[in-house]
Amino acid sequence: MQQVSLGFLGCGNIGGGVYRLLEEMGGELARRDHLQVRVEKILVKNIEEALQINAAKGLNVPRELLTEKAEDVTSAPGISIVCEFMGGEQPAARFMEQALQNGKHVVTANKVALALNWDRLQRTAEEHHAGLWYEASVGGVIPVIRVLNRNLEADEIDRVFGIINGTTNYILTRMAKEGKDYEDVLKDAQRLGLAEPNPAADVEGMDAAYKLSILASLAFHGRVTYQQIYREGITGISAKDIAFGQEMGYTLKLLGIAKKQGSTVETRVHPTFLPKDHPLAGVDGSLNAIFIHGKYCRDMMLQGRGAGDMPTASAICGDIVEAALCTEPSYPTFDNTPEPSPEFQFTDNWMTRAYIRLSAVDAPGVLQKVSECFALESVSIASMMQKEAEGEERVPLIFITHPAHEQAIRRALERLDRNVCSLEQMIRVEG
Amino acid sequence: MQQVSLGFLGCGNIGGGVYRLLEEMGGELARRDHLQVRVEKILVKNIEEALQINAAKGLNVPRELLTEKAEDVTSAPGISIVCEFMGGEQPAARFMEQALQNGKHVVTANKVALALNWDRLQRTAEEHHAGLWYEASVGGVIPVIRVLNRNLEADEIDRVFGIINGTTNYILTRMAKEGKDYEDVLKDAQRLGLAEPNPAADVEGMDAAYKLSILASLAFHGRVTYQQIYREGITGISAKDIAFGQEMGYTLKLLGIAKKQGSTVETRVHPTFLPKDHPLAGVDGSLNAIFIHGKYCRDMMLQGRGAGDMPTASAICGDIVEAALCTEPSYPTFDNTPEPSPEFQFTDNWMTRAYIRLSAVDAPGVLQKVSECFALESVSIASMMQKEAEGEERVPLIFITHPAHEQAIRRALERLDRNVCSLEQMIRVEG
Repeated sequence: MQQVSLGFLGCGNIGGGVYRLLEEMGGELARRDHLQVRVEKILVKNIEEALQINAAKGLNVPRELLTEKAEDVTSAPGISIVCEFMGGEQPAARFMEQALQNGKHVVTANKVALALNWDRLQRTAEEHHAGLWYEASVGGVIPVIRVLNRNLEADEIDRVFGIINGTTNYILTRMAKEGKDYEDVLKDAQRLGLAEPNPAADVEGMDAAYKLSILASLAFHGRVTYQQIYREGITGISAKDIAFGQEMGYTLKLLGIAKKQGSTVETRVHPTFLPKDHPLAGVDGSLNAIFIHGKYCRDMMLQGRGAGDMPTASAICGDIVEAALCTEPSYPTFDNTPEPSPEFQFTDNWMTRAYIRLSAVDAPGVLQKVSECFALESVSIASMMQKEAEGEERVPLIFITHPAHEQAIRRALERLDRNVCSLEQMIRVEG
Repeated sequence: MQQVSLGFLGCGNIGGGVYRLLEEMGGELARRDHLQVRVEKILVKNIEEALQINAAKGLNVPRELLTEKAEDVTSAPGISIVCEFMGGEQPAARFMEQALQNGKHVVTANKVALALNWDRLQRTAEEHHAGLWYEASVGGVIPVIRVLNRNLEADEIDRVFGIINGTTNYILTRMAKEGKDYEDVLKDAQRLGLAEPNPAADVEGMDAAYKLSILASLAFHGRVTYQQIYREGITGISAKDIAFGQEMGYTLKLLGIAKKQGSTVETRVHPTFLPKDHPLAGVDGSLNAIFIHGKYCRDMMLQGRGAGDMPTASAICGDIVEAALCTEPSYPTFDNTPEPSPEFQFTDNWMTRAYIRLSAVDAPGVLQKVSECFALESVSIASMMQKEAEGEERVPLIFITHPAHEQAIRRALERLDRNVCSLEQMIRVEG
């Protein structure tokens, strides 16, 4: 029987979930893997507060495990694996670095700290012969990190895209099903604890962009930094656009999209219409799903719980077991530079289809004028819908384009004569 | 740069695909993983024949790599990884055992040889400190083996089920879309090379049962042998039942299903109706998809190409890279006995819903008599459909039951009075 001593940095929802899982599955892990896993120390902000919170959650963590000093976890000689559950970039990244410097394996689900400090953390890990695991950092329990790092290591991946933020997927799903506006559903999600009191990281797409930077780096074998990712959130989405999209056969999702062709790379997070029969269109609520396409594997989809304490704990404990049994840590096999990989040319002129909603004066010749703007930029229209005005002076005009260059679409929209119509919404269409 | 020398046992479609992938990706593997992978020897039945077949496929394998003697691969001192592509139980299993005895890592996609000789192969591997990889043995490129072995190692899996045979999925998809009968579609699939000249292994569910025995063993951490798996193929399925099912909102798939509750285990392969909006219902053609449910991870779905030379080659080459970099082989963490695990109670009295088609005399009182048979065995009817007779004496009566014990359903069907009705079809319903 191998003894494994863990240190926790933080003990919130996820940390509590991991503690509970290890307690419940301790006997099984001993039987299956000959591992006796013991939590040695847990860093908390305030011991008294932590005791109260744990008690309220029915989590029985002995007081002597708790500490307010990070060194008790990151430098304790008895601890071999440090599990980071603090969230946010700092001090989490600094503490992980300290643990790695002390030769401890680190397991984390923290996409922010990882996406922003990956090069540094990996270098420190390599220097000290320590391992760094982060399966739960993207897509919760979805096994995408191991799939990219191991299963597809010999393949050439050219596309990774998917629903990688549960909060926005929950909000968009409810907006679509109930016809409600963004603000109403957001408030309800906050009340239910499914959105943060400050929801910016989720609804403005930052969380998805951190995750996409990790996925794209692994898939394309070169560093794609957070800053390289084009980002639009869902705060500007109205119930109206979701309804018009539905009428035209599309479902709205916040997607993270990474594509590579030759050395040209595009990475973007934005609301996206998908055909109703697209496999991602049916992925609702807190589910996440990730599509991968490669030269040899062709298309693959992985779907599962992207959030929730116990699913995430399951992924983290998979990492903990691997770390415990690990004799030779392995690292992603690309030059993990602090800057974007010099081998990639990043483009903001990707090919896309677009849903465009205009508000137009209800007069003869307007449609012709609008059509001319698209034609001049060689943007071809796939379908069009004009709604009758409902007591308004202006009428909604909705176009869905054929694939075109992003910048050509933007130039076409800039050509619109503001005296006869205004741009109300532009949403990209995939699939 | 690490030199890796491979030996191939066989060089058919899959072996040829692996050879091609390694040739095309050689530079990348050197760059990414500092591996120089070289194929040293290839066992073929007949060298002249193999040269002709390879030439016809445009595969440029030098004559000096080919051999007709297995020992040139399994015993060659220079070869560190043996890749088995022969298919079938023997001599593949024997050759793999020889390679393992010589301390060579073995990579295989051969579910038959593995399912029937797993205990022996694993024991030999452990004794000689060699590794055994088989990601491509189930679901082609779907990463289910690593997900069960690594990602979910700390979880408690209670259900694994899915579409794990591409040939039957292709046949059922076409039967449903074209309304054609089994024999017609099978002939066409054979003509297109999508079904074997002798299709028994696929259409009678053996292939799926081999795979399910591997999945269930890994998921439940105990040996589930092939013999423990209840098996029904698709040869008795008529276009009529697919059409009636569709009318009632169901899609027909051949599923492998493994469930565990406490120590009770059920494993079965049979045609299964799924609600049309079930995520597996839309998995068509040669796609495979596997559902996993666990206590902590909850529900997860993995989908991808279950067959095809290059997708399978991608999975195999992922294994080859892992084997090449491996310093400490790991094995499934359960007592890999030749017999079914003594910790499991296998049951054939699972809970299921059922689609039942009867052919009944068109006379008063028949429906009451039939209903009584079900009621006497406490099988409750969820929906019923009676079709008008079309120039026949007897009418089709279709029932879909609520969940009931398999044996109760069978007893109810035995109670039917053969003078007034006959059982034409019974298909289980999931989801």
